[in-house]
Amino acid sequence: MIPQSTRRRRKQAAESPQAGGDAGRRPVLTIRVDFGPPGSLGPGKIRLMELISKHGSISAAGKEMGMSYRRAWLLVDDINQMFRAPLVEKQTGGSGGGGARLSKLGRDVVGRYRAIEGAAATASAADLRALKASLAAPPSDRDSQDA
Amino acid sequence: MIPQSTRRRRKQAAESPQAGGDAGRRPVLTIRVDFGPPGSLGPGKIRLMELISKHGSISAAGKEMGMSYRRAWLLVDDINQMFRAPLVEKQTGGSGGGGARLSKLGRDVVGRYRAIEGAAATASAADLRALKASLAAPPSDRDSQDA
Repeated sequence: MIPQSTRRRRKQAAESPQAGGDAGRRPVLTIRVDFGPPGSLGPGKIRLMELISKHGSISAAGKEMGMSYRRAWLLVDDINQMFRAPLVEKQTGGSGGGGARLSKLGRDVVGRYRAIEGAAATASAADLRALKASLAAPPSDRDSQDA
Repeated sequence: MIPQSTRRRRKQAAESPQAGGDAGRRPVLTIRVDFGPPGSLGPGKIRLMELISKHGSISAAGKEMGMSYRRAWLLVDDINQMFRAPLVEKQTGGSGGGGARLSKLGRDVVGRYRAIEGAAATASAADLRALKASLAAPPSDRDSQDA
């Protein structure tokens, strides 16, 4: 048995970095934008780009997401081919295969995705509260009443 | 090789019924709501509920989504256990295993999900247009310029 709290943290980490410490208490909205043939943008690609910006490295970013080196590089190629210019700039040379960083367009795309996420959460707050009020009580709520 | 147009239609059908015939021209926003331990609501569960309402049958709804009978029933059980009352009411008896329909709460949940989707699309329209303007030109656009 995996404790409820651990499962919740894992779910948060996998799905959205905005969840913070209270995903059990409020609904977390995740956005996917499908552009048709060029591809789609969802939480995984955005999170990978944010971690590339943080670590300056594609492989370190992929590692933090529990992704193989190969998978992270393929995702970056996919992201770069979607847009009119690369979002992730690979710097060749140096030890460890060189670093990577976001281009200006890359930072713009990440910012707009997070803005869409924020606007969506604000615009739907009342409906989200109503959905939450219709949920079954989770086992963890009953546990804390017992404690 | 699968033709571009076929791949696009398949992607639409799988991801969102709101896509209509113009997913190649405008971005389609898809929403997932994660409630923590009780579970999450995304386009698949919502579409299944809408099709159950349309067909009056869980297996017919699953079939339209290319889902196995078993998978559709497991999803319905999952959906029903998430909320304080069942969203899908199974009617036992009759030929073919009986029908199914949405409860009042089920119709309410589907309506709120679609409202969240609409509010999110409206609130993020400007950012979505900016993202679309940054995309690489898809092969199908170049094709139509040639035609």
